Amino acid sequence: MTHPALDQLKARLQELQSYAGAAAVLRWDQETYMPPRGVEARARQLATLARLMHQRFTEPVVGEWLQQLEEEALPQWDPDGDDARLVRLVRYEYDRAVKVPTEWVTAFARLTTEAREAWKDARALADFSRFQPYLERLVAMVREYAHFFEPFDHIYDPLLERFERGMKTAQVEALFAPLRERQPALLRRILERPQVDDAFLHRYYDPERQLAFVHRMVADIGFDFARGRIDLSTHPFTTSFSVHDVRFTVRYKTDDLSEVLTGALHEMGHALYEQGIDPKFDGLPLAEGASLGVHESQSRFWENIIGRSLAFWKHFLPALRQVFPENLADVTPEAFYKAVNRVQPGFIRVEADEVTYNLHILLRFELEVALLSDDLKVADLPAAWNEKMQAYLGLTPPNDAQGVLQDIHWSQGYFGYFPTYTLGNLISAQLWNAMQTDLGDPYALVEKGDFGPILDWLREKVHRHGAKFEPQELVRRVTGSDIQAEPYLDYLEAKYSQVYGLN
Amino acid sequence: MTHPALDQLKARLQELQSYAGAAAVLRWDQETYMPPRGVEARARQLATLARLMHQRFTEPVVGEWLQQLEEEALPQWDPDGDDARLVRLVRYEYDRAVKVPTEWVTAFARLTTEAREAWKDARALADFSRFQPYLERLVAMVREYAHFFEPFDHIYDPLLERFERGMKTAQVEALFAPLRERQPALLRRILERPQVDDAFLHRYYDPERQLAFVHRMVADIGFDFARGRIDLSTHPFTTSFSVHDVRFTVRYKTDDLSEVLTGALHEMGHALYEQGIDPKFDGLPLAEGASLGVHESQSRFWENIIGRSLAFWKHFLPALRQVFPENLADVTPEAFYKAVNRVQPGFIRVEADEVTYNLHILLRFELEVALLSDDLKVADLPAAWNEKMQAYLGLTPPNDAQGVLQDIHWSQGYFGYFPTYTLGNLISAQLWNAMQTDLGDPYALVEKGDFGPILDWLREKVHRHGAKFEPQELVRRVTGSDIQAEPYLDYLEAKYSQVYGLN
Repeated sequence: MTHPALDQLKARLQELQSYAGAAAVLRWDQETYMPPRGVEARARQLATLARLMHQRFTEPVVGEWLQQLEEEALPQWDPDGDDARLVRLVRYEYDRAVKVPTEWVTAFARLTTEAREAWKDARALADFSRFQPYLERLVAMVREYAHFFEPFDHIYDPLLERFERGMKTAQVEALFAPLRERQPALLRRILERPQVDDAFLHRYYDPERQLAFVHRMVADIGFDFARGRIDLSTHPFTTSFSVHDVRFTVRYKTDDLSEVLTGALHEMGHALYEQGIDPKFDGLPLAEGASLGVHESQSRFWENIIGRSLAFWKHFLPALRQVFPENLADVTPEAFYKAVNRVQPGFIRVEADEVTYNLHILLRFELEVALLSDDLKVADLPAAWNEKMQAYLGLTPPNDAQGVLQDIHWSQGYFGYFPTYTLGNLISAQLWNAMQTDLGDPYALVEKGDFGPILDWLREKVHRHGAKFEPQELVRRVTGSDIQAEPYLDYLEAKYSQVYGLN
Repeated sequence: MTHPALDQLKARLQELQSYAGAAAVLRWDQETYMPPRGVEARARQLATLARLMHQRFTEPVVGEWLQQLEEEALPQWDPDGDDARLVRLVRYEYDRAVKVPTEWVTAFARLTTEAREAWKDARALADFSRFQPYLERLVAMVREYAHFFEPFDHIYDPLLERFERGMKTAQVEALFAPLRERQPALLRRILERPQVDDAFLHRYYDPERQLAFVHRMVADIGFDFARGRIDLSTHPFTTSFSVHDVRFTVRYKTDDLSEVLTGALHEMGHALYEQGIDPKFDGLPLAEGASLGVHESQSRFWENIIGRSLAFWKHFLPALRQVFPENLADVTPEAFYKAVNRVQPGFIRVEADEVTYNLHILLRFELEVALLSDDLKVADLPAAWNEKMQAYLGLTPPNDAQGVLQDIHWSQGYFGYFPTYTLGNLISAQLWNAMQTDLGDPYALVEKGDFGPILDWLREKVHRHGAKFEPQELVRRVTGSDIQAEPYLDYLEAKYSQVYGLN
C-alpha cells in the first residue's frame, strides 16, 4: 500500500493542513479575543494564507501524483481502504480547485471582506440599500463561479456542492417538498393550543454560574477538555486545529437560560464529531466531517433529540437546580422540558424552535435559487423575503435587520449553505431511528446520565470515518436508506403532539 | 523613491510578515489557551511556517532585488530615509539567513522541540543528567552555527548578533566589568543594614481584584486596549501580530502582590514599545524593536525606574488601597516603595531585585562564553554554576532545578540572549538621564499620574523608529553616548542608598 507519489502527496497535504490549522486559529482568535484594531492585519494574514493554500494545492505536480496513483496504485488497492479513499477525496477536491482561477479566488476574498463590513453597517442601520450593491456583485460572482463547473443540471448545483458533496438541487427540492406541507400544518395545530409556560427561563441567571454548569454538562456527556475548550463569542461556532484541539464557543443571556444550554449542546455536537475522528487521519483531509449536512446532524442530534428531551432534563435538572435554586426550586423536569420546546414563530432563524426552523431554511433556499436562476432581482429581495415570511410563518418583519439582513452568510458568499441545516435535521432523525434499533431505548440511558453508549454508537458509525465516505454514502451505510424527510417529520409530530397535547 | 524592485521586495516582506504574525498568534495561543493535547499539531504547524518563511526569504530573487536597489536606487536615496534603512536592514538579515543552511534550521528546530520537553522533565525532577545529552547537542549545533559566520573575533559574537545587532563579546566584557565590581559591593553594604518590611505584600490578595487593578493601571499609563489585551500565562511575555494588535501576559500569586504588579509593568513596557512603532512600518521588518536590549530597556524602565519609584506609589497606592483595603489600609507610599525594592539574594533570576539581577546575568554570560570557547564541558556545568552563585550571591542552590536548570533559554538554543537583559538595564538608565534633561523632573509628573509626557518622549525618541536604526546607533542618537555601565550603577547606588539608608 505504499507508493512514492503517495508519500509526496501526503507530505503536501500535511503541509496544507498546517496552513489550514493556522488559519483556523487566526479565525478563532478573531472571534474570541482579538482587540478591535487587530482586524486589518488579521485580514492580511488570512488572505495571504488562503492564496498560499490555493497555489500549493493546485500546482500541477499534485495532479501528476494523483494520476500516478490512479494508474499505478488504485487498481491494486482495496477501494474502501483509507489510502484509496484519500486519493479519491483529493482528486475530487483538486478537480474542483483547478477549475477556479486564482484571480477569482483573490477577487472573491476581497469582495467578501468588503461585503462583510457593508452587511454589518446595513444590519445595524436596518438599511438594505447599503448592502444591495455588494449583494449584486456577490450574486454575479457566485453565478460566475457556478459556470466554472458547466455543464450542470441546475445553476445552483455547483454551489450546493461546495458544502454538500454529491447533493443536487433536484434532490433538495424533493426532500423539502413534504416539509413545506407538514411543518406549517403542525405549526397551525400547535398555535391553536394553549401556550406553554417558560417564564422561569427568563429570570436573572448569573453568567458565571451558567458557564460553570455548561462546562460540567458537556464534560459529563463526553467532551474532552484535554483536547478542547469553550470560549465566548458573539456568534457561537465550533472549530478544530487538529483532532486533538477542538474548540467551541457559546454566548449567554442573563434573562434567557435556554440560550447557553441549547447553544452549548449544539456546538458540542459539532465538537464531539471532530474529537471522534480517527486520529490516524490527523493532518490529512480525511480528518474533517463528511459534509456540512452530516456535521449539522450531529449538532442538531445533541441539541434537539437529546438536549430537548424529557429524559435529558430528568437527568440534568437536579444539578441545574442546585446551581440556580433561586430560579428553579419549583420547576419540574416536565415543565422544563415543555419550556425548552416552546413553539413560537419569530423573525430570527437562529432563535427558531424545531417546528419553525426548517421554514426559515425553505424561504432562504427558494430565494437563493430564484436569485441564481435570475428569476429574482437583488433589488426585489426584501419584498420577496417579507412575502415568504408571511406565507410560511404569518409574520412580517418590522424592518430588514429582522428580515433579509439577519444572516451573515450571503455577505460571505455562502450561497448553497442554508439547505445543509435542514439536511442535518433530516439526517439526525434517521440516525436516531437507527440508534434505537441498535440500543433499544436510548432515552432510558439519557435519563440515567449514561451517555457512553450513545456517543460510542455515533463514534463508531459516523465520527471516526471523518470525510472518508461521501455524505450520502455514509447515511446509507449507517441507516440503510437515502436521506429522507419522513423520519424527521414523524419525530417532530410525535414530540410536539406530546408537548402541546395534540390529538 | 520608487523602484519596481522595491515594490516586489515589499510585497515579499509583507507576505513573510503575514506568516510571522500567524506564527506569533499560534505561539500566543499555545501559552495562553491551547488545551494540553493540542501541542503536537501546534508543533507541526509552527515548523511548517518556519520552513516556509526561511525558504521564501532566502530565495535568490530576494538577493537580486536587494542588489538592484543597492546599485540603482540607494545612491540616490536619503541614507536615513525609511526605504533606504529598510533595504539596509533586509540586506543585513538576508546575508545572515542565507549563511545558514535549511538543513541546519530544520535540525535545530527539531532538536529544540525535543530539548524543551527534556528540560521540562529534568527541571521537574531536578535531574540535570536528563537534560545533559540535549544540552551537549545544543552546544555543538550552536558552535556549528557560529562557524557559519567565520571569520569572527570571538566565537560568541555570531550568537550575540542573533539578538543584539552589532554587539561584540569584547564590548559586553567591557560593559560588564564595572558591574562585576560595584554591584557586589553595593549588595554587601545593603546586607549590613536592617531589612525592610514587606510582610503586607504577602497577605492574601484576591486574583480577580489583582487583575482588575492591573488593567486600570496600565490603561492609565497609556496601554491601548483597542490595540491590545492582557491574558494569563505561566511565563509572562509580550507579543505582537501587528502594531495594532499587541498583547502581553501576566501571572499572579495570591500571597505575593508584587508578582503581578512588577510583571505587568515589565511586559507593559515591551508592549508600549510595540504599540508606539510608526504604523507606516506595519507589515515590514521595520515594525519591530531595534534589538532585544533596547526592548528590555523599555520593560525595565517601566518596571523599575518608574514602577519601583516612590512617586509612582504616591500616585497609585490610594487606588490600590481602595481595591485591597483589608491589606493596605495602614500602608504608606514610603513603606510600599521600600517593600517593592527589598533586596534579598536568591537562587532565581526572574525573582531577583535590581541590585542582584545583573549578577545572575554575569554568571550566565560567563558560563555561555566558557561553553562556547570549549573551556567548560557541559558535564561540569552544574558545578561551575554553583561555584559562581556562591561567588556572586553567597548562595549555593539546594538542587539543579533551583540552579542550572531554572531557565528555558538554553533548551531553546538561545545562547547569546542573556546579556541583552543587562544591556537593557544599562540603556534604561541612560534614557532616564536623557529624559530628565528634556522633561526636568519626570517623577513630579509620575506623582501626579501625568504619564503622557513620559510616554510621548519615549515614543518620539525610541518607539516610533522601530528597527529603522541599529540599536547602538539609536542609543547614541537619543543619549549622545554609547551604551555605558556607569549611569545605571549611579542610579542603583543612589536609589538603594535611599531605600536602605546607606551613607
